[in-house]
Amino acid sequence: MAHRPSPAASTALFSDFYELTMAYAYWQHGRHMTPAVFHHSFRQRPFQGGYALAGGLGELIEWLDGLRFTERDVAYLASLTDIGGKPMFAEAFLDFLLASRFECSVDAIPEGTLVFAHEPLARVTGPIWQAQYLESAVLNFLNAGTLFTTKAARICHSADDQPVLEFGMRRAQFMGAALSGARACYIGGSAGTSCMLAGQRYGIPLKGTHAHSWVMFWEDELEAFKRYAEALPSNCLFLVDTYDTLDGVRNAIQVGRWLRSRGHDLLGIRLDSGDLAYFSIEARRLLDEAGFPEAVVTASSDLDEYLIQSLKTQDARIVVWGVGTKLITCYDQPALGGVYKLGAVQEDGRWHHRIKLSEQSIKVSIPGILQVRRFQNARGEYVGDMIYDLERPAPDPWIIDPADPIRRKYLGASHACEDLLIPIYRAGQRVYEVPSLETSRERVRRELSRLHPSYKRLQNPHLYPAGIERELYAYRQSLIAQVKDLGPDLAED
Amino acid sequence: MAHRPSPAASTALFSDFYELTMAYAYWQHGRHMTPAVFHHSFRQRPFQGGYALAGGLGELIEWLDGLRFTERDVAYLASLTDIGGKPMFAEAFLDFLLASRFECSVDAIPEGTLVFAHEPLARVTGPIWQAQYLESAVLNFLNAGTLFTTKAARICHSADDQPVLEFGMRRAQFMGAALSGARACYIGGSAGTSCMLAGQRYGIPLKGTHAHSWVMFWEDELEAFKRYAEALPSNCLFLVDTYDTLDGVRNAIQVGRWLRSRGHDLLGIRLDSGDLAYFSIEARRLLDEAGFPEAVVTASSDLDEYLIQSLKTQDARIVVWGVGTKLITCYDQPALGGVYKLGAVQEDGRWHHRIKLSEQSIKVSIPGILQVRRFQNARGEYVGDMIYDLERPAPDPWIIDPADPIRRKYLGASHACEDLLIPIYRAGQRVYEVPSLETSRERVRRELSRLHPSYKRLQNPHLYPAGIERELYAYRQSLIAQVKDLGPDLAED
Repeated sequence: MAHRPSPAASTALFSDFYELTMAYAYWQHGRHMTPAVFHHSFRQRPFQGGYALAGGLGELIEWLDGLRFTERDVAYLASLTDIGGKPMFAEAFLDFLLASRFECSVDAIPEGTLVFAHEPLARVTGPIWQAQYLESAVLNFLNAGTLFTTKAARICHSADDQPVLEFGMRRAQFMGAALSGARACYIGGSAGTSCMLAGQRYGIPLKGTHAHSWVMFWEDELEAFKRYAEALPSNCLFLVDTYDTLDGVRNAIQVGRWLRSRGHDLLGIRLDSGDLAYFSIEARRLLDEAGFPEAVVTASSDLDEYLIQSLKTQDARIVVWGVGTKLITCYDQPALGGVYKLGAVQEDGRWHHRIKLSEQSIKVSIPGILQVRRFQNARGEYVGDMIYDLERPAPDPWIIDPADPIRRKYLGASHACEDLLIPIYRAGQRVYEVPSLETSRERVRRELSRLHPSYKRLQNPHLYPAGIERELYAYRQSLIAQVKDLGPDLAED
Repeated sequence: MAHRPSPAASTALFSDFYELTMAYAYWQHGRHMTPAVFHHSFRQRPFQGGYALAGGLGELIEWLDGLRFTERDVAYLASLTDIGGKPMFAEAFLDFLLASRFECSVDAIPEGTLVFAHEPLARVTGPIWQAQYLESAVLNFLNAGTLFTTKAARICHSADDQPVLEFGMRRAQFMGAALSGARACYIGGSAGTSCMLAGQRYGIPLKGTHAHSWVMFWEDELEAFKRYAEALPSNCLFLVDTYDTLDGVRNAIQVGRWLRSRGHDLLGIRLDSGDLAYFSIEARRLLDEAGFPEAVVTASSDLDEYLIQSLKTQDARIVVWGVGTKLITCYDQPALGGVYKLGAVQEDGRWHHRIKLSEQSIKVSIPGILQVRRFQNARGEYVGDMIYDLERPAPDPWIIDPADPIRRKYLGASHACEDLLIPIYRAGQRVYEVPSLETSRERVRRELSRLHPSYKRLQNPHLYPAGIERELYAYRQSLIAQVKDLGPDLAED
């Protein structure tokens, strides 16, 4: 169901099985073309931080552009049977899938934009069977992309904008996470990757010099550094901890002198184990005393934003940070709990709102056709976000935090505002060009510069005001009351 | 550098940049064809559990089979420049890459085999530039595959072999992790996946019925269940918590009666929020009282092995477990810290051993050309593993735990033994057929049946005896002493 065939193997079946059984059930009832609206959002702040950055849209678009059921896909579906051994799907339905083309409209928040809990990051409008079918892929790409972009930004922030290099490929969750992860991290602020395939695909700068094995190959460390310098005199950043870290620094210095005699520079050294604070300070001292103040001390040993912050408070002399496992797996929170909820269904030309209650109030959805409006003050700082229903005028921008209705804010005194969800597809046609990674990186920098530092703190950040427009909030409460069959009192809040 | 061209885009550059800069440096010194042996192993028990299961070899083989530098790869590498703006690599080296073919021999432990810390899961032997180049991909695939397979087995074990369904695609770290993750989880014991593309690619059974949105679409929940039953009468397992869980169960029962009148069965219900122990017991009671003892209660709300175990001790009546986020991201430990270390280098026809010390003793490598021998007692239970050097006879199977030299064990009284690393490639030619997933699943079941229950405990499991053969251990200590320039006393241990 897409407008452009993909030369590679079809990935049209990258969806959960229940999306298709539901499509089949709608189709059987002749209701599959009913227009519906779904929203993607997350409920809890990733990493308990003060912000998140939208990501994964580039990957989602790539998937959507190639989305079309092939003969092979349909043959596979035809092979599926129910518990009685009969074909799961009628042949006419499979023919319908084969003939179908992508018809949805998609609005989304561009990659690298600040986003907050409860806000729709994407809105999908279209025939319900299709809008529903997209759920799993929208969640997969936007959840992971937003998580990785946010993690990278947090780590870069803790490094005070010193270069952070993404060295994670070997610990990534299979090949795709190494590649898409490298892309998201680069948008989030990392300065380069170790993964050549990511460099080739996305144009991310590559970084790397040598491993411990290089040192182990040669007779001793000094010879190893020397041999490397002979071969790649312009890329000499030596890993010094294969045997003894400070001896390693001394050997690097010795080869640095040789490099200098040949008109080259010792770029620096890398620490990969031991006490990074101590060794970085000692390495810096040795390098400075030997006349190599320009040679940098870099480190790469299970770093994350907390360890980097701690090393900085200890006056570690590290100026380039190689971050692997903790970044490429978002180690302390490896998933963003994003959800994709039905907001409204169109019948007889009118939108009818939908709400999900469940047993936990944080899982209650927001009804309507949603947009996010971001307000800024006269200094250009962001002061609050309003989730509102496109069909309900909101002349009076009061917001209420759905997770804590005590928290309310009036945004009407703001200087300017902007709606965040922009058109990506219209009736199946793409109307948006994916920006270059450099453009998205720049967006991240600009976005974070507009956020007060208190929101960027790692521990107990200030909570950014992002809430539901007051009338929509009241309407949502009334729907809850209606479904729960509560009296009007409880419905008020 | 492979024997079979891949029709898809080349992934030959799926390697860290430093693997290539080292290859270039070896090449410049004319040392690139020096035979070398590397081992992949991990240092710490994943999930602090008592065992791990090897995984990811299927993915690694797929990558190796397609490994060859293309014109496009080389053109990209030719575009890379050093800090001075000059080409990073000489043209002759790029020609060499283009002409090269995969020549390594690879030995590995088959997927689904029990493995323990420090044991080599794979051994790569070949020209050092190639054996080194493989590092990043070996680590990526085997680390992730072993982690996911192990996680799935842990969760299935906690479910007492009741079906565990992998529902993780929406929270996986991009598309590749959803697919390869589903594959690894299926080998590890999960009974099905929600992801259709994984079903299509790997033949994994698909599971799924409907989402909350299906219920929200219709006028009320009863109508929603009824409409679903009309469309898919053989696949009726209703999600009951959209509005009120026990009302949902009652609606499911009502539709169950209708299904029965049409000759179909209510398969069961699914809980996705709230107190699963309470609701499962109440749902079971309602279903039993209504005459639906065969209808199952399933659940899917942030489950993992600990929560499943807890629910079981609370007599929850859940018999099918849908596990998503915690499984597909290996949430509590999203990376296996596997490493790939140089064991020996051949010069003048003789192998010269290599060791890495670093500042942390757990990071000290094991020198030699390693194999793992597993011993079993007369009942077929595994009693211990010995890591030994193929070139050193080990007539006397004493093992020493490298992480705690106090722990030593004699395995000579065992009934039988087996070497675990088997040939996968010989001089670049594949000599191993990847078993079917069913075969690997069966291997997992057999392996776990041979492991004493105390090793399978979630909390503080018994530590399986896996260690270094005594003479190799002593030799390793002597190398440490040599490199550290210690006296003979310290070298002893």
